Amino acid sequence: MPADGLEQDAFGKPGQRLARGVSRMLTSLGHAPLLEFVPTGGLRVDVISISPKGELWVVECKSSRADFMADRKWQGYLEFCDRFFWAVDTDFPDELLPEGCGLIRADSWGAELQQMAPESRLAAARRTRLLRDIARVATARLLAVTDPMGVSASVS
Amino acid sequence: MPADGLEQDAFGKPGQRLARGVSRMLTSLGHAPLLEFVPTGGLRVDVISISPKGELWVVECKSSRADFMADRKWQGYLEFCDRFFWAVDTDFPDELLPEGCGLIRADSWGAELQQMAPESRLAAARRTRLLRDIARVATARLLAVTDPMGVSASVS
Repeated sequence: MPADGLEQDAFGKPGQRLARGVSRMLTSLGHAPLLEFVPTGGLRVDVISISPKGELWVVECKSSRADFMADRKWQGYLEFCDRFFWAVDTDFPDELLPEGCGLIRADSWGAELQQMAPESRLAAARRTRLLRDIARVATARLLAVTDPMGVSASVS
Repeated sequence: MPADGLEQDAFGKPGQRLARGVSRMLTSLGHAPLLEFVPTGGLRVDVISISPKGELWVVECKSSRADFMADRKWQGYLEFCDRFFWAVDTDFPDELLPEGCGLIRADSWGAELQQMAPESRLAAARRTRLLRDIARVATARLLAVTDPMGVSASVS
């Protein structure tokens, strides 16, 4: 087992394993999550998720202290969501996490919402643009699976 | 070969085969198409597609006269898109088609945009709602493929 506390195996890197558990929890809440979404050039969020009413959540998954310390961009994510969450495993040193964010405890198989994030509501135009981009990325990835021979100019 | 002019084989029913060709064409135009989308209860469109700028197109695929004549709901689709198109194969009797719609000539492998549809611009709130619903359906279908064990309460 590597130093960051999660086995790395066929399910992917530790952060991706947390993202899978987070996705399952979000789905159970009626959300529609998308992994590894680029809201703007140079930024990639681990999970962006659309609530049934269209609220946008961003969840960053951190598997270790080193993983967290290496992320110098997280404050940039705040302007692309209504609520921002950290997702960490049970061994994570929570005291590292900045205040004012939501907290999700996750593993590869599921997750638990431990602290709701405060709302910082997106402007209408940005919300529409993000919904458009999420829809375009998700449909392109879906087509790449369902009709791989049809992929020519991919959206993402 | 059945009376409706397209072989029914592993690629699905004739209308679905046209939808595949239409999807490929739309993708080549930079669009992001989603098949079999339900914009509101009781209506299911063959293809809904998001342009790079967020314009929404609906494409109804008709493989035969009988297929077209059986569709009594098509005018209901108009209020869920900026532009509406028929997609038909080369043998289709075009004179059946109502005026004022776009026309796409399609087969299983591709399609050609023969007549651009006039624009009937969606209201902003409906556009946002449709983008949200398309994004939610596409992400849910994608997760059903990428993490089938995680599917519990599906969006669509």
